[in-house]
Amino acid sequence: MDVSTSRAGTQVERVAAAIRQRIAGRSLLPGAKLPSIRSFAGTMGVSASTVVEAYDRLVAEGVIEARRGSGFYVLRRQQPLSLAQIGPQLDRAVDPFWVSRQSLEAGHDVPKPGCGWLPSSWMPEEELRRALRRLSRTGAEALTDYGTPLGHRPLRQLLSQRLGEHGVAAPPEQILLTESGTQAIDMLCRLLVEPGETVLVDDPCYFNFLALLRAHRVTVVGVPWTPTGPDLAAFAAAISHHRPRLYITNSGLQNPTGASLTPAIAHRLLALSEEAGLTIIEDDIFGDFCQEPVPRLAALDGLERVIQIGSFSKTLTAAARCGYVAARRDWMERLADLKIATTFGGNPVSAELVYAILRDGSYRRHLNGLRERLARARGDVAVRLSGLGIRPWIEPRGGIFLWCELPEGLDAAEVAKRALAEDVVLAPGNVFSVSQSAKRFMRFNVAQCRDPRIYGVLERAMDGAAG
Amino acid sequence: MDVSTSRAGTQVERVAAAIRQRIAGRSLLPGAKLPSIRSFAGTMGVSASTVVEAYDRLVAEGVIEARRGSGFYVLRRQQPLSLAQIGPQLDRAVDPFWVSRQSLEAGHDVPKPGCGWLPSSWMPEEELRRALRRLSRTGAEALTDYGTPLGHRPLRQLLSQRLGEHGVAAPPEQILLTESGTQAIDMLCRLLVEPGETVLVDDPCYFNFLALLRAHRVTVVGVPWTPTGPDLAAFAAAISHHRPRLYITNSGLQNPTGASLTPAIAHRLLALSEEAGLTIIEDDIFGDFCQEPVPRLAALDGLERVIQIGSFSKTLTAAARCGYVAARRDWMERLADLKIATTFGGNPVSAELVYAILRDGSYRRHLNGLRERLARARGDVAVRLSGLGIRPWIEPRGGIFLWCELPEGLDAAEVAKRALAEDVVLAPGNVFSVSQSAKRFMRFNVAQCRDPRIYGVLERAMDGAAG
Repeated sequence: MDVSTSRAGTQVERVAAAIRQRIAGRSLLPGAKLPSIRSFAGTMGVSASTVVEAYDRLVAEGVIEARRGSGFYVLRRQQPLSLAQIGPQLDRAVDPFWVSRQSLEAGHDVPKPGCGWLPSSWMPEEELRRALRRLSRTGAEALTDYGTPLGHRPLRQLLSQRLGEHGVAAPPEQILLTESGTQAIDMLCRLLVEPGETVLVDDPCYFNFLALLRAHRVTVVGVPWTPTGPDLAAFAAAISHHRPRLYITNSGLQNPTGASLTPAIAHRLLALSEEAGLTIIEDDIFGDFCQEPVPRLAALDGLERVIQIGSFSKTLTAAARCGYVAARRDWMERLADLKIATTFGGNPVSAELVYAILRDGSYRRHLNGLRERLARARGDVAVRLSGLGIRPWIEPRGGIFLWCELPEGLDAAEVAKRALAEDVVLAPGNVFSVSQSAKRFMRFNVAQCRDPRIYGVLERAMDGAAG
Repeated sequence: MDVSTSRAGTQVERVAAAIRQRIAGRSLLPGAKLPSIRSFAGTMGVSASTVVEAYDRLVAEGVIEARRGSGFYVLRRQQPLSLAQIGPQLDRAVDPFWVSRQSLEAGHDVPKPGCGWLPSSWMPEEELRRALRRLSRTGAEALTDYGTPLGHRPLRQLLSQRLGEHGVAAPPEQILLTESGTQAIDMLCRLLVEPGETVLVDDPCYFNFLALLRAHRVTVVGVPWTPTGPDLAAFAAAISHHRPRLYITNSGLQNPTGASLTPAIAHRLLALSEEAGLTIIEDDIFGDFCQEPVPRLAALDGLERVIQIGSFSKTLTAAARCGYVAARRDWMERLADLKIATTFGGNPVSAELVYAILRDGSYRRHLNGLRERLARARGDVAVRLSGLGIRPWIEPRGGIFLWCELPEGLDAAEVAKRALAEDVVLAPGNVFSVSQSAKRFMRFNVAQCRDPRIYGVLERAMDGAAG
């Protein structure tokens, strides 16, 4: 959003947003008549002309229509749902899909400092080949049959042990395998939130949380994220102001900042959530990158109101995906029903591959190597970036990301557009930010920053954007 | 539903259903006040005492609450969504999840005439082992990287050719890979329907359509299915009465009946849909079992309002699943965005395995063998069932199912419960029926009926249910 926007413009947008919200939350259904201009001006505490301007804007957006002499009506949707049309209309360059699309569609040889995963050469290739060969000799049922509703039992047993090592008591019956971490969160949103309800996220947070929550048509409210976790005063205020139903976070090595929750913040956060009856999804996707123990909300809470999800797409393979949900015992039946309804039988071959690698110790060795290699890369890349005047926000204690601030006056989205023209994919800060307050920030994946060309492109893009 | 239910009881249920519907469609939001008893009695054309009884029933179900002196209110949901609580409260034995859960959870040695897939020994085991070995030698990227938004390009090219053989013109850019056929339909429902809108299905239809549509909280209306396709008069009446947004069907070897659409019905059906602006999802999951050409709606329509989906879970493997959507060019971007938001990168290893088998001709050989083997099994099983007085509704021209009528007076759900006590999983007709009008029907999977024990158990269960 342009900082020079006048106060009047902001009011118009606030009124338009209130109407979009009512439509998303279905308190205004397709075909319904909008409140009259006078009455809505009263409701919103603005002038009638502000409402007129807001309604005009919604007409231009194709959200409502004016019927002569009768008022304004919600348009009946003729076209299928477009995620791009839900929620605030962001600049295309900072759309949450921008980085995903660029990263997923770029060829293997395109440098992708903005992408969220490790290069192929950092993944346990030999272990995967061995697991595939082993699978090719296994019983026929494992190769052809649907999975059980909760999924591959030996893998759930192993996950239960691993969770136990982090203090999370989750027997295999409280673990459900999913087709990915993303799909785990998607299922949980279906179970826990309704269109129009409010969900809290960190600001900044993983951009695909924002895309996914758009698809659920919920109101997303950001809580400023600090180097030790969410800002608790803002968290408490958001709870009392918005009465959210759910909070989604990473407690260890948060994406994009790499900061982890401290035990004290974790404890206070849980106490506030208990008081408000708030459910928390703790996405532990980067947990295995942690070099030192981090508090898991699920461990403190005992899976009462915290649901932990995770996957192996970042540390093992993103080509045969497998995620999990660890949740309260009395929610498992509903989760299993929903999994059947929406996917039927899961993907047992992926679960089998993950299990084969996890069980034989090679995964632990791989992680140890990865953590050391990443520590070196974080140091090296921080030095290279500093040379360009790009400063890391913190020095993360693990993981693949450096959340960095660009020199004053630069717009990261502009820099990213220019870099893309030279075939380098970057991740501008505002794709991670609900409040669009990370214009000068950029997320760097240190494992994807090894190609020296990147720094030249970055320098030119910054020069161009500054000019 | 008990046929002895009195007319008054039916009226009460009709009123209760109307309220549940308004809640599901969010025209009554959580916390909203229900219409007064007198006014709703007028709306529904029933007596006030009928509305009182219906509201009491909804209080007992935990859907609404009475506030002393103030009226009835929609309860704010404290518990997560339970699929079992959405839509009509069916007898547990005929819940759409009943057959899924039993089939998915039963051990490999439990006879499952009620399940919807082939036994492991009928699947192309050697081809799968070969494909896994080949995969273990492939490039590292294929083993570790996320998939592209549309998915594995060579597989989409191959699917484009296969679709072309059925008259469906879909270039690879109009094909999107999904994690399963179920997930393909789920994504399309998210794109195309809103809670409270109406979706047409066949009656009977695949039970998981009903479970999935419950999760989308749409109103499901059944169109009676005949041996040549949907009853067109009923289809036209449903269109004008319910203004549905979507129709989901199988045109070839419909599940559960095994009947296929005739060209004449297909043409009329499309004409009616065009007139009404109705979108159709054609689930071609059993297409490869067809022994003779069947008309594809997507071929007649040219992917204008028909979307075709399919998968290889029934003919190749259900352990490494891969589905597809073939749709209009101008919907592909939205589909790709939605796929990223809800799954991020798909499952490239599954796509690679399917591709490896499809491309080398072994899949065609496998299908030819399968069709012959199934034709023999359909004949054999029909004879065995006839000996018990169980008569196939039609003689299907392919596929794995016989949709059969039990002798008069028998309740298939009762027979299925008794058989389950002897460890045989059956599929009672009403799990497939929106109108609950298939009480005497049962679906038999002929490939899962080879164990001679089944017929003894079936006979005893029928005797018991008749007694």
